[in-house]
Amino acid sequence: MVKTDLIIIGAGPTGLFTVFEAGLLKLKCHLIDALPQPGGQCSEIYPKKPIYDIPAFPEILAGDLVDNLMEQIKPFEPGFTLGERAETLAQQDDGSYIVTTNKGTEHHAPIVVIAGGLGSFEPRKPPIENIREFEDRGVAYMIKDPEVYRDKKVVIAGGGDSALDWAIYLADVASEVSLVHRRKEFRGALDSVEKASELAKLGKIKLFTEAEVKKLYGDEHLEAVVVKHNASDKGEVYVETDNFIPLFGLSPKLGPIGDWGLEIERNAIKVNNAKDYQTNLPGVFAIGDVNTYEGKLKLILSGFHEAAIMCQFAYKIINPDKRYVMKYTTVGGVTGFDGSKKEAKKEVVQRIA
Amino acid sequence: MVKTDLIIIGAGPTGLFTVFEAGLLKLKCHLIDALPQPGGQCSEIYPKKPIYDIPAFPEILAGDLVDNLMEQIKPFEPGFTLGERAETLAQQDDGSYIVTTNKGTEHHAPIVVIAGGLGSFEPRKPPIENIREFEDRGVAYMIKDPEVYRDKKVVIAGGGDSALDWAIYLADVASEVSLVHRRKEFRGALDSVEKASELAKLGKIKLFTEAEVKKLYGDEHLEAVVVKHNASDKGEVYVETDNFIPLFGLSPKLGPIGDWGLEIERNAIKVNNAKDYQTNLPGVFAIGDVNTYEGKLKLILSGFHEAAIMCQFAYKIINPDKRYVMKYTTVGGVTGFDGSKKEAKKEVVQRIA
Ligand SMILES: Cc1cc2nc3c(=O)[nH]c(=O)nc-3n(C[C@H](O)[C@H](O)[C@H](O)COP(=O)(O)OP(=O)(O)OC[C@H]3O[C@@H](n4cnc5c(N)ncnc54)[C@H](O)[C@@H]3O)c2cc1C
Ligand SMILES: Cc1cc2nc3c(=O)[nH]c(=O)nc-3n(C[C@H](O)[C@H](O)[C@H](O)COP(=O)(O)OP(=O)(O)OC[C@H]3O[C@@H](n4cnc5c(N)ncnc54)[C@H](O)[C@@H]3O)c2cc1C
Repeated sequence: MVKTDLIIIGAGPTGLFTVFEAGLLKLKCHLIDALPQPGGQCSEIYPKKPIYDIPAFPEILAGDLVDNLMEQIKPFEPGFTLGERAETLAQQDDGSYIVTTNKGTEHHAPIVVIAGGLGSFEPRKPPIENIREFEDRGVAYMIKDPEVYRDKKVVIAGGGDSALDWAIYLADVASEVSLVHRRKEFRGALDSVEKASELAKLGKIKLFTEAEVKKLYGDEHLEAVVVKHNASDKGEVYVETDNFIPLFGLSPKLGPIGDWGLEIERNAIKVNNAKDYQTNLPGVFAIGDVNTYEGKLKLILSGFHEAAIMCQFAYKIINPDKRYVMKYTTVGGVTGFDGSKKEAKKEVVQRIA
Repeated sequence: MVKTDLIIIGAGPTGLFTVFEAGLLKLKCHLIDALPQPGGQCSEIYPKKPIYDIPAFPEILAGDLVDNLMEQIKPFEPGFTLGERAETLAQQDDGSYIVTTNKGTEHHAPIVVIAGGLGSFEPRKPPIENIREFEDRGVAYMIKDPEVYRDKKVVIAGGGDSALDWAIYLADVASEVSLVHRRKEFRGALDSVEKASELAKLGKIKLFTEAEVKKLYGDEHLEAVVVKHNASDKGEVYVETDNFIPLFGLSPKLGPIGDWGLEIERNAIKVNNAKDYQTNLPGVFAIGDVNTYEGKLKLILSGFHEAAIMCQFAYKIINPDKRYVMKYTTVGGVTGFDGSKKEAKKEVVQRIA
């Protein structure tokens, strides 16, 4: 059982920055995300695209925003449960909560912060009859640790950036990479398309276009897939492989959170924005894209401010008898749980010779 | 008369970022600030100190934060009335407002945004009997344009960073710089104290410590000051000078804004934080440090979020019949009033050879 002060569901920009604001108040955080990596929409949907409305960044790539946030929160040593979906929320007799994931990992804390964005990112699965039988036995819908594929044969399906980028990456790791796409054209960043082209020419990526994976074969574990060309005269190809990874995009689903007894409005959680961003369940807050209130803007900067306010109220719940006096970071510095200390250079008081 | 969409009182971080959010909505802004430079507290009080809690900046100097904001808002060509205090607010028959400064500059707009922070920065003036007579005739409490002092004699008073930094700067511009401080020790950044020391040794700054300026002489314009040493045996010195600049710090005062009929609580303006950050006067909003509501945090990130929400509602007041559909900057890009356009690189749709 993971024990912490704040369980944060969702490791998007909002969840990440919450770690920082909580850390200033000496509260520890543990994040749960269905994705294998932190960053939410920024990492999953548009890591290489620029954002122009993050205050004081005339331009920043979404992926760099996430990297910066990870660096900023490092002193506060957040815990992570990645690649698992928060499935149930159970209030305990003492008012605290246990959050359990779809893989059975349990987390216990007095405060739950739902920073779930548009929902848990769930893969779009191709309609192959027996695909579920091979899940975790050769079939995966996202890549958590590319080292798993070292010296293995891999078939990737998809025609967008994820499929291209992973095919490129695994060309150097796997013993064989095939890329299957049902159209002629790929859609992605220019450099990804060019790099994949080059590797295809060198034979490091085997290309099947206007084709789809239709059947999976194997005993305990996946052993082969059948690639069927759309044009009937080109027929089917039997491809031996250890892994099949369809990368057809992930789409967010509010999912289990919808069944936790929270007040839901327009597919989002109603919160008290006039005060603390708490939900109708005491000690359960909702911030960032996942919440709603009059005038709500689903922007990254909203989650940052909501996190700062919310943490003050979480502090009061955890420390009902203490009075917290806010100190500017410039004045008080930042003291990490890892023993690190950042602070402004002291002024000197000195005679001028 | 300056005409614009939003008159913003206060060019601190909040006021500056408002220009950006308004610009995305095609609304033009004009900023008024009592200080000669933009940046509010960040520029005036701690430009060289690091801030650690700006989201996605593990560390940023307050002065750099302001520079970044200025760069970010550049495409939206804000107007500035600097070095003037907004003195009166007068509602017109059509509901619009005229804001007039202490120097008589008039500004007219349908919307007024008060982003006045802790108030208008007002200089602490030394208790010299006839000092007011020489204001704008040799006496100044802040430096707007250092070129005014080229080849002039200047006496600066004060013992902090401003006094040190301006004495250092003007040593190269003025024909003579004297620095008067009532203690032995100066308090400032180490490099400023060291640099001033060096210039004093070279005779480029004349130093008077444990001394105060007590009298001012001149006819139409300042001609000399009397510097009196604290130790009675050291007596008085008559120093010929064109300028006397006491830099004893600026302290913020809510000032005239307090008399505009706004609902004031704890020296700040009450706003409707559950919705739009509007005050009790229609079309007048208050954001950033200057406002108050339950749970308010006087942090820079608060003003940023408040600005974004507030601008949406200002848009509705100005365009009652239009429906604004928000577009992410990543998706829609940023089109400046200056004709500039920032946008994400387009994806390619391409065959892999
Ligand atoms: C193409 C695009 C461009 C954009 N451009 C901009 C822009 O220019 N400016 C801007 O401000 N915003 C922009 N946005 C919006 C911005 O990305 C979101 O506002 C931001 O990501 C919200 O952050 P968040 O942390 O609240 O949620 P998210 O980023 O959505 O992260 C939520 C995380 O929670 C996880 N999660 C949810 N439920 C569960 C569960 N039950 N168990 C485990 N994990 C769960 C999800 O997997 C996800 O990783 C853009 C969005 C897109 C898609
Ligand atoms: C030493 C110090 C360290 C700090 N550290 C941090 C930190 O680490 N993190 C953080 O988030 N915050 C910090 N702060 C607070 C932060 O600086 C403020 O929250 C921020 O400056 C507020 O921005 P603002 O634009 O709302 O107001 P301000 O920065 O106060 O700007 C308001 C401006 O309005 C002008 N004005 C007011 N009334 C009038 C008028 N009638 N006419 C003309 N002009 C007027 C003023 O002259 C001023 O320039 C710190 C503050 C100080 C002093």
